[in-house]
Parts: sequence; C-alpha cells; structure tokens
Amino acid sequence: MGLFRAKGVVYKPVENVNLGPDSDESYIKANVKAPRMAGFLAKIFAWFLESRIFGPFLLYILKRNNLIHKLVTNAELEESPVYVPLHPFEELNEKEVKHVNSDLSPSEQVQQAIGCLPLPSEKIVNELKPSSRRWTIMDYSKAYSSGEITPYKVAERLVAAIHESSGPPLDMAFFINYDAEDILRQAKESTLRYERGEPRSVLDGVPVAIKDEIDCSPYPTTGGTKWLHKFRPCKGDAFCILRLRSCGVVIIGKTNMHELGAGTSGINPHYGATRNPYDPGRISGGSSSGSAAVVAAGLCPVALGVDGGGSVRMPAALCGVVGFKPTFGRVPHSGVLPLNWTVGMVGVLAGTIEDAFIVYAAINGPVPSHETSVIPPPKMYFPMLQSTNSVSDITLARYGETVDVTIPDIEAMRLAHYLTIGSECTAALSSYLEKLDIAESGWDVRVALSVYGAFSGEDYIKAQKLRNRQIQFHRNIFTKADVIVTPTVGVTAYPILNDALETGELDYINGAALVRYQIAGNFLGLPAVTVPVGYDKKGLPIGLQFIGRPWSEPTLIHIAYAMQTLCISEYRKPQAFYDLLKKD
Amino acid sequence: MGLFRAKGVVYKPVENVNLGPDSDESYIKANVKAPRMAGFLAKIFAWFLESRIFGPFLLYILKRNNLIHKLVTNAELEESPVYVPLHPFEELNEKEVKHVNSDLSPSEQVQQAIGCLPLPSEKIVNELKPSSRRWTIMDYSKAYSSGEITPYKVAERLVAAIHESSGPPLDMAFFINYDAEDILRQAKESTLRYERGEPRSVLDGVPVAIKDEIDCSPYPTTGGTKWLHKFRPCKGDAFCILRLRSCGVVIIGKTNMHELGAGTSGINPHYGATRNPYDPGRISGGSSSGSAAVVAAGLCPVALGVDGGGSVRMPAALCGVVGFKPTFGRVPHSGVLPLNWTVGMVGVLAGTIEDAFIVYAAINGPVPSHETSVIPPPKMYFPMLQSTNSVSDITLARYGETVDVTIPDIEAMRLAHYLTIGSECTAALSSYLEKLDIAESGWDVRVALSVYGAFSGEDYIKAQKLRNRQIQFHRNIFTKADVIVTPTVGVTAYPILNDALETGELDYINGAALVRYQIAGNFLGLPAVTVPVGYDKKGLPIGLQFIGRPWSEPTLIHIAYAMQTLCISEYRKPQAFYDLLKKD
Repeated sequence: MGLFRAKGVVYKPVENVNLGPDSDESYIKANVKAPRMAGFLAKIFAWFLESRIFGPFLLYILKRNNLIHKLVTNAELEESPVYVPLHPFEELNEKEVKHVNSDLSPSEQVQQAIGCLPLPSEKIVNELKPSSRRWTIMDYSKAYSSGEITPYKVAERLVAAIHESSGPPLDMAFFINYDAEDILRQAKESTLRYERGEPRSVLDGVPVAIKDEIDCSPYPTTGGTKWLHKFRPCKGDAFCILRLRSCGVVIIGKTNMHELGAGTSGINPHYGATRNPYDPGRISGGSSSGSAAVVAAGLCPVALGVDGGGSVRMPAALCGVVGFKPTFGRVPHSGVLPLNWTVGMVGVLAGTIEDAFIVYAAINGPVPSHETSVIPPPKMYFPMLQSTNSVSDITLARYGETVDVTIPDIEAMRLAHYLTIGSECTAALSSYLEKLDIAESGWDVRVALSVYGAFSGEDYIKAQKLRNRQIQFHRNIFTKADVIVTPTVGVTAYPILNDALETGELDYINGAALVRYQIAGNFLGLPAVTVPVGYDKKGLPIGLQFIGRPWSEPTLIHIAYAMQTLCISEYRKPQAFYDLLKKD
Repeated sequence: MGLFRAKGVVYKPVENVNLGPDSDESYIKANVKAPRMAGFLAKIFAWFLESRIFGPFLLYILKRNNLIHKLVTNAELEESPVYVPLHPFEELNEKEVKHVNSDLSPSEQVQQAIGCLPLPSEKIVNELKPSSRRWTIMDYSKAYSSGEITPYKVAERLVAAIHESSGPPLDMAFFINYDAEDILRQAKESTLRYERGEPRSVLDGVPVAIKDEIDCSPYPTTGGTKWLHKFRPCKGDAFCILRLRSCGVVIIGKTNMHELGAGTSGINPHYGATRNPYDPGRISGGSSSGSAAVVAAGLCPVALGVDGGGSVRMPAALCGVVGFKPTFGRVPHSGVLPLNWTVGMVGVLAGTIEDAFIVYAAINGPVPSHETSVIPPPKMYFPMLQSTNSVSDITLARYGETVDVTIPDIEAMRLAHYLTIGSECTAALSSYLEKLDIAESGWDVRVALSVYGAFSGEDYIKAQKLRNRQIQFHRNIFTKADVIVTPTVGVTAYPILNDALETGELDYINGAALVRYQIAGNFLGLPAVTVPVGYDKKGLPIGLQFIGRPWSEPTLIHIAYAMQTLCISEYRKPQAFYDLLKKD
C-alpha cells in the first residue's frame, strides 16, 4: 500500500506558523505543469484523458506533476476535515451600521439599504457626471420617477443594443438567451406601476442580467452547455430571482458563462467567447463572463453571477466593475445549478459598490432549511455609507493601520479547492453525464470533467482538512486585521486567440494566475469584494480585492466604498459602451 | 464518460415517500456478495485486492456486485450532501428531566446524575440481590464508603482476575494492555482519598476499562494493530479520560478491539479473539469487543468504547450489557484515534443503564472548538429516573402508543455509511499507511483497507447526499414517535472458528446482519442505546435498541431504564464471571 506513494508535505501545527510579515513561510508559484492548449492539441489531450487505458495513467501523472500528491493527497496534517465553510454567526460590533429586521420583504430591505446611502448633497466634489459614467440604480429610479424616461423606452433601447452587440461585427457574446418579448412585457408592467405611482422599489424597471447558471423563467438553464437543460429543465425562478422580481426588476436575459463554470477565460465554444468591453479582442474572464461584461458595457447597472472559485470577482476585475460575493449562507442557493455544494455562492456584479449593496439587500435572506441543517439565522446589519469632502478621510487608514500578513499554503489551498469543486461537480452532474453524448461538450470541458472525476474519497477528505487549516489561519489573521487586501487577479485580460474559439482553451497557467488570490472567499466561505482601482498600460482594468471576516459584509462595503471614492476620478469608459438613458 | 456506468437507483423526492406501516417501500436484504473467508482463502483474496493489476478490476466487481454502484455511486437523488451529522440544539421539552448547568465539573455532573437515580427505598421488589448480578457503581461506592472493602483490595483481585482470564486455558483476550503496577497505584491513591473521607465522586476507585482506540496514559494506543502506536505515540490522556480521572476512577487497562475497528467480530489476529463471557466459544462482537466483554464478565461496571458503526452497541448486545452512544457532538472526541471524523463517537458500555448514565454524566461536556466549528453549546438535561411498584407502569406504553414506521433505503444507508467510514479511515491513516509494512496487518484488515481506499470523491459526496435524505426521513419519523425501537443486531453471537484465529475472518454476511439496525446512530448522529432484554435458545444475550431524536438522551435513558426494569428478572450470569466484591 505504501510502496507507491510519493512523499507528501508535512504541515506544521497551526499554532507554530508565523502569520506576520517576518514569517519564514515561503510562497511557491502556482506550479502548473500543463501548457496552453486549444484546437487540435486540446482534442488529442481530451481523447487521451478519456481513454480507459491511458486515461488513469495520464491523470496520475497530471496529479503528481501539479503537486496534488505532494500538497494534498499524501500530505500530513493534524486538522479534522471541515466540509462546509459555514461560520457561526457572530456579532461583530462593526462601526457605522444599522440593524435591519430580518423579517423584512426584499423591497423593504432595499428601502433600508437606500436609507444607508449618502445623500446626494453629501456627494464628493469630483464625482463624475452621469453622462460620462455608467448609470446607477438611483439614476434609473430618478429618471423613471421624474418621468424623464420610462422603463419601456429603456427596454426598447436595450433590446436594440443587445441585438447589435450580439451580431457581427461586434459578436460580444454577452448572452446565451434573451427574449425581447419577455423584456418588453416586464418593462411595460413596470412602466404601468410608475404611471400608477406605485413602483415596487428603486429597482423597479431597472434592467438586471442573470448568469445562465441560475434558474429564471422563461429561459432554460444551460450552464453554458448545449445539453444540461435537456436533462434538467428549468422549473421556475431561483429564490434569489423571486426576491429580485418582487422588487420590480426587468430581467434582460441569461448571460454567457464558461461552460459549466469549469474555466476562467469565458471562452465558450458553443455560445462564443464573451468579449471584454474595454478591448473586444480580449477575454472578459469567467466564469460569470457575460454578467461582468454587460455591466461594464452599460447594458444594465447590475447582474447576478455565481462565484465558486472567483467566478464573480475575476470577470468583474477584468471588466472594471464591482464584484461582490457574500458570506457562505447569506443568500439562498435554491434554484442555482448544483455544480457544487460547498464553494459556490450567488454574487453581484455592479457598476458601483452602492448598486452591489442594493441588490445584495434584495437577494440576501433566510436560507431554506433543506439547503443546510446548521445555519443560524443571522442578524442583518447594513453599512451607513457617508461621503466626506476630503479624499484623505476615506482611505484605508480610516480603518486603522495596515499590517502585512502572511497567508501560508495558498497553492495547497488552490489545489484543495480545485479538488473539492471538481469532485462536487462530478457528483452533481453524474446522473446527467450518464446520459450525455460527451461530444456535445467543449474540449476544454471534456478535459476538466476527466480531471474532476479522478479524485478519491481520501483526496476529497484531505482537501477538507486543508480547509480547516486555512480557516484557522484566517481566523488568526482576522484578530489582527478587519480585511485582507490583495490584487483581485494575477493578470489582466489577455487576448482571445482564434484557435480557442471552436474548441475552448486549456490555459491552466493563466487560469491559476487568475484565481490565485480569490480562493479563500470560496473555500473558506468568506465574504469578498473586488473594486476597480485603475488601468494597466494597455488600458485594461485592474481590481483590488477585500476579503472580510465571516458575516462582515458591512465592513467590506464600507471599505470598498472608500476605495471606490478614492479611485473614481480615474474612471475610463469602455470601448464598447451603451448609454441607454441618453437624451434623445 | 457515461458509456460504462451501470444504471443507478432513482430515489423519489423525500416528500413522496410514505413512512407509515402501509408504505409500499420494500426492504431489500443485505445483498452481500462475499463469502466467509479466513485462513488461506483470506490471504489469496487480500493478495489479489492489493495487486496493481487485478486489484482495481476486482474492486470494481466487488462494488458492483454489492450494489454500491446501483444504490450509491450511480444513484440519482435531489438532496444536497450533509457531511457532518451535527444537529442544531433544540429544546425538546422532555418529561421528568432536570436542568444541569453546563459549567459544572465532571464530578459535579456525576453528583447531579446520582441525584436523578431512584432512591433505594423506591427500588422495585423483584430486583436481584447484588450477589446474583454484576456490581454497579453504587455498589462499589457504598462498599468503599462503608469500609466494607477498599479500592486497593478490589484492584488486587482485579489484577489476579485479569491475569487469570488472559492466560490459558481461558484465553479470553479481553485486554491488549494492562499494567498491574499502574492499576494498584491508582487504587492506592483512591483508597487514601476514602481514608481521608474525600472521595472525588461515586466513581472514585471504580474500575473502568478503556477501548484501545482512546489515548490513555501510560499505555500506547494500538487501535488493535501491531503498528499504529509506533508511528503515532500516545501523548497523554484523551479529553474523556481526563474527565473520568477527575472523578477518581481506576483505569484498568486498554481493551481488545477489532483491528482498526474495521470489523465487527472482535477476532483480532494479533491480540486474540475476544471471547464472549456467555459462551467463550463465541464472538463478543466488535469493534469494542473487550470493553463489552469485561463488563459482561464483571471485571468492571463500566467501560468506554467508540461507536463508528455500531461498535459499542453491537458487542454490548452480544455480551448482554448496556451500550450507549450519545448524540454526535455530545462528548469531546479529542484524543480518540482519528479513524474517522463524522461517524465515530465515544460511547459507554455498562452493566446497567444507571451506570451508563453516570459515566455519560462524567464524560459529556463542551466539545473543543477545533473539533468542529459549528457546534452550538447545548444545554444539559438529565433524566429523573423513578422506580415504580408495578411493572405495567413502566412499559413503553407509558410513553404513549407505539406506531409502526417504515425507514426506507436502510441498505443504501449501510453502504453509504461503509463508504464514508472507509474513505475517512483511509484519509486518517494515509500518512501511517505510507510507512507501514502491510504484512504487519491482519489479512481481514488488508482486505478492508483495500476496499476502503477504493472510493472516489464522487462516491463520498453521493454518500453524503444519502445522509441528508436519511436525516430528513428520520426527522419526519420523529414527529410521530419519540424513539425508534429495533432489534440491536440481526444475529446473536456466532462461533469463533479456528481458521480465523491467525488471519482474522472475512464474514461480511454476518457483519451486515450485525450492523443492519445501528447505522442511523452513526451516520445521522442520533443518540442510541441497547439494553439486554433476554436470551435466545442457546442462552446467548439479545439486545433491544432505542434510537432517539438528536439531543434526546434523557428520553432515551428513561425508556431504556423502563425496559431494563421490565427485563431484569430474566437476568442470567455469564459463564465467565468475576465477583470482585465477594466477601472473603
């Protein structure tokens, strides 16, 4: 039994690991032993992996070369496994927060959130004029309420814009499905509500796009595939969609995504590579590619995504928008494709942190008991956002000193997370995969599914031991700091190459760089947010990520708001941009 | 991918399953396709399983033939996985209970428990005289307090009795390790405490045996192996042992167990087959074989075991003693061999339910946070036990009517549990197995380890989906009934065959019959107790099992006490019996 096992890492007891800046822990680079492959090479690779003879051998080599044996399977560590990153609810005594009753309806919660926004009179002097930026939820709400424009008129422009963006020459591949009739019907009803003076909330009539991983009538839920919806018909709206609808939003369609969320580029061989509004020759990131891109392009102020391994924050950073992933257990997951159970969370993509906050206020709420048996009903706190007149007041320093921290074993965490999401995805899809003609999947996904299914029960449990270990590290760090600040991604948007368009692309090196800093949010269930803070030399957006304590959404929103205020003057419009509220 | 998958069961939604007596759910027999093997056959089988060439193929066949593919791996079911059977604490409004502050010390808790026992004057008329039954904790306590005998005198007799039982011709194989010097030293200290009039509790000086799966100085923790303690030295007492010691008990040694807890017969090729005191030619059951047998034999009134798959209740039933397994999370697990994380629980074996209750009062207590991050601190309730004069008052009817219920898919639950404990055991032992010369293990355990390591991450997760499903079934049943009553085991103690003594024995058919009714206690984290209720035609003990709601230990103890009172006149002394308190 022991003869064939390679030596694994022996992890030190948690209490012996120095988490300070003087730590002797060393960061290893993502040790990805897999060249970029697309086109014919990707096909060959998938064929080998799927082979009954070569497959197991090749998978063994892949696991070994990519340090999975060393850092996970054969590692020695004391921690018990933690399977669900569900943290007991704690009163955090955050500053500048308002307690919100947890029995409020979604529209009442939205109303409470609005009450937490800074008054227009307080707005800082250098804020951009609406014409030179994306429109916010409040811009829509005011324009509708004042009669300046109607939801129906906006919807008409929107349908035209979606149509234009979807076809040549743009081929932005924002959407997998949209239904002009359904959009106009919703907008008409909203318009009537405004005419009666009875909008449901500030979200009434506001266009919202939904990642095609979330059930939402009248659309099938493809998960970015050509087949999943055939076996799993969409039976109605997900819980989060029901909550949004009760606020009056206009759902504008199902956004494109990396097939099965199994990659990070957003290059989908069936529905097209979602193009980055800042440079349509480049990726939008993934897997919530379309949701990030439509917000960046100004088609809607907010969109829902699902973040199982940075899938909201990554495309948000690459497309220059806000991406917000709440604490595990904050938002009901019912009606989201069960591609995994312990790492994925509904998240919000938005032009501004205020808009992410408003939609978060709408969708968060009691999680049904069948989702998990051990959720404590958390109290709700909302952050009271305040503009100040001096930028120096709103820097991070407002939250006290910054300290350098060391987070050990982040590569092991990335691998343990990969192994977890892979095993869960395999279990989730097994009854469908059974019926599937594998040729209906993209080649990159065929490779992913082969690797996903290659992990043992022991691997899975070892990964959960590493999870416990990281939870303890992060708990220690959060005794010293309110938030952890990191770059959101390790690389900005890279070019879409032609050979990837039909087969999908295997680029685990760029993939690992994209996810490197985001895994804690998923694997440890921590809330996290990315805020656009600037642009690289090529003009591509850069995001900064804040990771918070469990249940510390208010602090996170406070800090993200301060950072946004600091950076807003840097704002640049994307190349592909639609201004739906423009004056005729 | 789908081509080679056999069709799995499609499980109905939980709400469509009838749990009443008129259910159309059918019970399938344990479909065990594995003949009894011992001796040379067991060796051949182990060699094939360990082979790099034939092993995987043989394991595939085994999994398929034993319905693992059909009922677990390829099954379709909606439920999300539940990884840890930790139930939120509920106030159950039980009858006749006393609230106990949860900040009491172990000896204070024991004192509270004593206050819950019926007064001697209330004892029912037909109770047996001490000379014709096993001595209870209170018998020891009174004899010590009155000076009738000292702990030291008892210890001397005990050492002689252990010595006698361990050697030929008896060869009972009760213990893996005992240290006469350590026993006498503890007894001397206890005797001095009594002389000073300062016993720590009623447990002071009471002999207690500990399963060799629980860390306990000065002994190594072998787990029934010849090797584990070489790689994992015992560094001190487990939490439950510390709690017992603070009550003054005399720990009399480490009891024999099925190697690694990986079987149910208690036949250990390294330390001997633990023999049943009621018929030394027969098994004692396992895996806490020695702990059950020493209590049955009268060497001590109580012993600790660990119950990962009926391992306390099974040998208790076969040896005619009480076996009590509390709710998952009730007793700290720190210092117990981590052979698994989500199914195993420390349990108590005792001659009477009162004694099980007293020791439970000592060892239960706050679980350290590193064991699990989501335990709510449960309130403590103790049952107020009362003897009554009429047997008819104390039947089950006192708790209301009995109703027939249907528990669906218990075979699927058994397999899902097997797969869970197997995968967890593999992960737990992986760093030791790496260093192990497999020839140091028994042949039955070599087979078990091969099968344990054969499950995929997908298998493990599917098993956790079945866990959720069963939790829901049981939750529904507990809306109709306070406890579920079942036979404890499906077979009484069977003979120890000579061919098994050196290789161990593979007898999955008897094994499945032994565990059939006990899995819910482990897999769903429910409290359960077995009470001896009579004897079969061969004079072998029969147990009745009660499974309760999460955290309903008081109700369970109440009912078990009533059942014990009802059956006590049937009591027969075992063939192998030691009367340590006899008059000189």
